[in-house]
Amino acid sequence: MEHNLQHTISLLTRTPAALNALLRDLPETWTVRNEGEDTWSAFDVVGHLIHSERTNWIPRARMVLQFGEAQAFGPFDRWGHQRESQGKPLAQLLDEFARLRLENLAELRALHLKPDDFARRGRHPALGVVTLSELLATWAAHDLTHLHQISRIMAHQYREAVGPWSEYLGVLKCAGHSSP
Amino acid sequence: MEHNLQHTISLLTRTPAALNALLRDLPETWTVRNEGEDTWSAFDVVGHLIHSERTNWIPRARMVLQFGEAQAFGPFDRWGHQRESQGKPLAQLLDEFARLRLENLAELRALHLKPDDFARRGRHPALGVVTLSELLATWAAHDLTHLHQISRIMAHQYREAVGPWSEYLGVLKCAGHSSP
Repeated sequence: MEHNLQHTISLLTRTPAALNALLRDLPETWTVRNEGEDTWSAFDVVGHLIHSERTNWIPRARMVLQFGEAQAFGPFDRWGHQRESQGKPLAQLLDEFARLRLENLAELRALHLKPDDFARRGRHPALGVVTLSELLATWAAHDLTHLHQISRIMAHQYREAVGPWSEYLGVLKCAGHSSP
Repeated sequence: MEHNLQHTISLLTRTPAALNALLRDLPETWTVRNEGEDTWSAFDVVGHLIHSERTNWIPRARMVLQFGEAQAFGPFDRWGHQRESQGKPLAQLLDEFARLRLENLAELRALHLKPDDFARRGRHPALGVVTLSELLATWAAHDLTHLHQISRIMAHQYREAVGPWSEYLGVLKCAGHSSP
């Protein structure tokens, strides 16, 4: 399936509400526990999504449009959310994510991208040449990879509790996020 | 983390709303496509969750309480949802899942389980002896395994569109659900 801006926006619009419905007011045993040393909790993942809204997608889209391949994106700090999120309640992070996403989708629409723009090229500091279309598709897929990760982190908390059923639960066999 | 009935109920309560927020009115390219032959779409997974509400969790909990190990659960038909869901709009399935979950949580509360009950034993046709506590923990983890699967099915639709970023997206590396 090729990238389609309307499909991307449809998904990006829904993620904050989905995470809100899943996580708000859940007991902390689900939301602040992780999968072991140097791994993330659901709380951390929401913090990372906020940090990405601030520093990743729209700023990088602007760089593609403004500089093309001439200037590489700045590196993304995958632990950059830690200081920003520390001590905040999860409900506040969920609100913040929803607000930033709404603002960024408004910015995306305001770019008035034309069909030709999607092939425009930028430079990723590690991956090399990427297109605007790939960047936007990745924004949506990044939501999904973290929803996937949150489900896995939460399921991990019941790894022992499910007893022999663990054999049937694919989420307990996932090695998709060996690093965060 | 041990099984905790209130934590299980907290999660079970939220899943229908989370899936509703994620999936309702999404373009069908996200919801009816699967990962290839003999795999499920997000639509199929919601159908399976409905089928499980009808035939799996509460009926099996009743069997544990009534027959203990003396009588094995009936086998669960993992394709049992197909006939039930066929031709229905996804919005109707989401409503149906929410309604059945609400009813089943009311039934669960009406069982008035006491601490001793969680260790009561039943018989799974393939896994052998299981406890009521394991069954209830699995009900919650089963929601998570399918949220995990839905995220993966949807991300798969953008596997090509993300270009070189696929390297960073854990969801595209997950082999946790080799069979549905």
